Amino acid sequence: MDVDSLPEWLGHQPLIETVQLQLTPPHLGDNTADLDRLLRVLRQQGYQDIQVHPLRIGQLAEQIRQSRYQVSAVLGFTPCHWELLDVKAGTGPVAPLAFAIDLGSSRLAFYLLDLDQGRIIAQESVANPQIPHGEDILSRINYARDAKARQNLQGLLIDSFNDTMGRMLAELGLAAADVYAVATAGNTTMSHFLLGLDASGICREPYIPVANQLPWLHAQDLGLQVFDRALVYVFPNVGSYFGGDLIAGILASGMHRSGEINILVDVGTNAEVVVGNRDWLIACAGAAGPALEGGVVERGMMANPGAIDRVRIDPQSLEPHFSVLGGKKPLGICGSGLIDLVAEMFGAGILTIQGKINTGLESPRIVTTADGPAYVVAFANETDDGQDLQVSEIDIGILLKSKAAMYTILNVITRKVGVGFGDLKHFYVAGSFGNHIDPAMAVRIGMMPDLPLAIYQGLGNTAGRGAAMVLLDRSLIGEIERICRQITYVELNVNMELMNEFRGALFLPHTDPSLFPSVNIPERAYAKGG
Amino acid sequence: MDVDSLPEWLGHQPLIETVQLQLTPPHLGDNTADLDRLLRVLRQQGYQDIQVHPLRIGQLAEQIRQSRYQVSAVLGFTPCHWELLDVKAGTGPVAPLAFAIDLGSSRLAFYLLDLDQGRIIAQESVANPQIPHGEDILSRINYARDAKARQNLQGLLIDSFNDTMGRMLAELGLAAADVYAVATAGNTTMSHFLLGLDASGICREPYIPVANQLPWLHAQDLGLQVFDRALVYVFPNVGSYFGGDLIAGILASGMHRSGEINILVDVGTNAEVVVGNRDWLIACAGAAGPALEGGVVERGMMANPGAIDRVRIDPQSLEPHFSVLGGKKPLGICGSGLIDLVAEMFGAGILTIQGKINTGLESPRIVTTADGPAYVVAFANETDDGQDLQVSEIDIGILLKSKAAMYTILNVITRKVGVGFGDLKHFYVAGSFGNHIDPAMAVRIGMMPDLPLAIYQGLGNTAGRGAAMVLLDRSLIGEIERICRQITYVELNVNMELMNEFRGALFLPHTDPSLFPSVNIPERAYAKGG
Repeated sequence: MDVDSLPEWLGHQPLIETVQLQLTPPHLGDNTADLDRLLRVLRQQGYQDIQVHPLRIGQLAEQIRQSRYQVSAVLGFTPCHWELLDVKAGTGPVAPLAFAIDLGSSRLAFYLLDLDQGRIIAQESVANPQIPHGEDILSRINYARDAKARQNLQGLLIDSFNDTMGRMLAELGLAAADVYAVATAGNTTMSHFLLGLDASGICREPYIPVANQLPWLHAQDLGLQVFDRALVYVFPNVGSYFGGDLIAGILASGMHRSGEINILVDVGTNAEVVVGNRDWLIACAGAAGPALEGGVVERGMMANPGAIDRVRIDPQSLEPHFSVLGGKKPLGICGSGLIDLVAEMFGAGILTIQGKINTGLESPRIVTTADGPAYVVAFANETDDGQDLQVSEIDIGILLKSKAAMYTILNVITRKVGVGFGDLKHFYVAGSFGNHIDPAMAVRIGMMPDLPLAIYQGLGNTAGRGAAMVLLDRSLIGEIERICRQITYVELNVNMELMNEFRGALFLPHTDPSLFPSVNIPERAYAKGG
Repeated sequence: MDVDSLPEWLGHQPLIETVQLQLTPPHLGDNTADLDRLLRVLRQQGYQDIQVHPLRIGQLAEQIRQSRYQVSAVLGFTPCHWELLDVKAGTGPVAPLAFAIDLGSSRLAFYLLDLDQGRIIAQESVANPQIPHGEDILSRINYARDAKARQNLQGLLIDSFNDTMGRMLAELGLAAADVYAVATAGNTTMSHFLLGLDASGICREPYIPVANQLPWLHAQDLGLQVFDRALVYVFPNVGSYFGGDLIAGILASGMHRSGEINILVDVGTNAEVVVGNRDWLIACAGAAGPALEGGVVERGMMANPGAIDRVRIDPQSLEPHFSVLGGKKPLGICGSGLIDLVAEMFGAGILTIQGKINTGLESPRIVTTADGPAYVVAFANETDDGQDLQVSEIDIGILLKSKAAMYTILNVITRKVGVGFGDLKHFYVAGSFGNHIDPAMAVRIGMMPDLPLAIYQGLGNTAGRGAAMVLLDRSLIGEIERICRQITYVELNVNMELMNEFRGALFLPHTDPSLFPSVNIPERAYAKGG
């Protein structure tokens, strides 16, 4: 993500403003107090309601006096008022910095911004340090039942923030004291962990978080090693399963400003979906199964070096061609690779419409293992660990459940608002997954509806981009509030109708192939597998 | 001061509100977050913008959950928003308490309020613990030049606050955790000391405080041992010599709401004066000399037990009659006693119009000391310390300078706005001094203008009352801001004209006796003294 990926409509009204001032020094005819003197001039310049932290006024007044009334005032915006954060001597330029942070459950992504220039000047991502306490978020919630564990999880995040931010600043020779704002977007559970809140209500009926609207913080409240009164904005949640990362996604997509109807999908263990336009937004989330996360499918892994992310299969030879992230020997297969693989196995007739492996085919790649039939993507001599890299029918079954859930959710939510798939102008896919996934493959397996491919658009790290956007344009704070008020969150109650739809969607591409006219179903796929 | 002394126009909209609520517990159809659930209902009840301290949301949500959604919410008002301070289990009544504190340089006065009942339920005053570091405020400013000394002065105040508040609460069996607000009014220097601010700019040209508008604090910012997020309101200043105590005085007098022109005077080392009505307020302050404070006039003392506070002299026998505070033997004489004494010495012809002692009179009380002529108020056998309690011409000269300064200031300020003394409807005298002073005596010595006595009104502890009023009626916060904006502060530049006026006012009652038609000047007062 760089500045080019920020939307064109983004204004430049940063969350932090610096104002260079030459104040008239006090004299007998004008002996206003030091701080009031500064605030008076700032008010004249349109900064109406300005607050100062009570324990900071002595220091700020001292800086005004010592700089002989030639100062740069650093102001931070909150919806309620401006906060006079800092006073610097002299009227030279001050370049306020800020960090936008994607608080992902797998990875934390950091973007360092120069607010005056309105540019992202560095970025870095690290693994979420909480992973040792639970690969998936549910086991972390389980771990964090008591206050001490919560404190531990919070501490791990803060340490990681401080390490990463410190390293990024040091590399550019920039000072932590010039970082005056931090914005972060994560799912509801991650936001709870960051604030040290009890997340246990999130995963049990009736699924209630501690808070959706989260208050503004200052760096010192969390122990962040930047300017100690730096403003910290945490994106609000809409519910337990619709978090700030999705709100940031809506913001980044701009769908809340569009007259056309668009859809935004975030695919993971939970599939989260929003449909709408500038007038209405409807959202839901549902369990999509963990097929696309690392660690569930036998050779599944996250999109890290060594992961197969693209697969093509020659329908004649049944031989695969694949690319591996990081150019290494393959070690596993990531989400987009798995979708490709299943789509190509189906396209080559290796998989039946029921998702079974066509064991009647002649190929050294179709083997029988202890887990039943499997397809060998890479033989032992080609892989990093010297083991065959194969995907079994069981693995494929897991993926089919995920894709069926995804399609069912998309169907239910659009039907709920009386919108056909054909009415959608854009189909946004959030997350780095959105950039990797090949829409043609996702359509072929019936995971996503059969729409013209140009409608599909991967948005990349929308949580990080949304956070960066708020830092660069404070008017978005109000927009976020409006988004939260506007969203109607629909609870997906599992009923018979839904179960029937889900069962139909388990097929490749669907029990009703007329829903996927563009998908060419090979003769062999009608064979009885196994 | 009790509730009867609070003005009739005072509304009952306390700074702290408690709201009893029976929330609908969450269920699948309504799984809003705990905190948002509470805030949603509070918003429906009209509390629009509510903030929660970021480090408090976990605890408050926990209290909501544990109380099974039957709660009392405690909300604190600030001009910007409501703060959700506390959540208590159950819907029984919560009786929020508050302290109003007069932050006097000599004494601290504490008033404990029951905010729901709108009543003052206890009061106590203690000596200002900073006195060992300077009896007068200037020597304290001098002492507090470095940060450590400032910290020490601040610590002394906080300790004294905590001791006194703790004792008052313990006596009534009340809990410190139920104290949700503190309001305090003091002069500019004392407010600086309370906040640990550098006051050194206050006493040297061009006389600038660090800040006039002081931010809202929370108890924990200062280390006050009440509810830790209790709101702390410190009255704003208008300038170095016009502090929050005077703003509280204006508020307590109600002069800022009146259609008539009134004057408010606070007499001390500085005389502070405000004239005006609901449309305009003009203020000034001037050195009145320390005659009325303890410790300058040889036997002068504060209005503590042992102080002579009332004096009458028989014009025939020249014998005095006096009352002593606390019913003890006399030890010294306080401000009101000194005014009485000089007025009565003048009325009995013991003092000449020049303020000299008429040594030609036959009386054992008229003596000559090393300091020149003196009048013995109490002989050694009547006094507490077994020493003659006498007042010398030098002492009287000090008082005359003070009273001349006072009269001159009154003259200048009224002339500045084209108001004659006769236009004044009320002449308010602030401070406990205002309750002790006898207007007839003040007029006789030419300290205050010769107006019908009914116009004079002592207001008592206006700093404490103003602070209590803000706690009981939050709409006054806005009124205080308006008062601060409305006041025109006039710097008294000492010039020839002023010096001539001052010299005229040094006489008893004045070189121009026609200004004081009601004052009967005895024949003997025209004698040449000494």
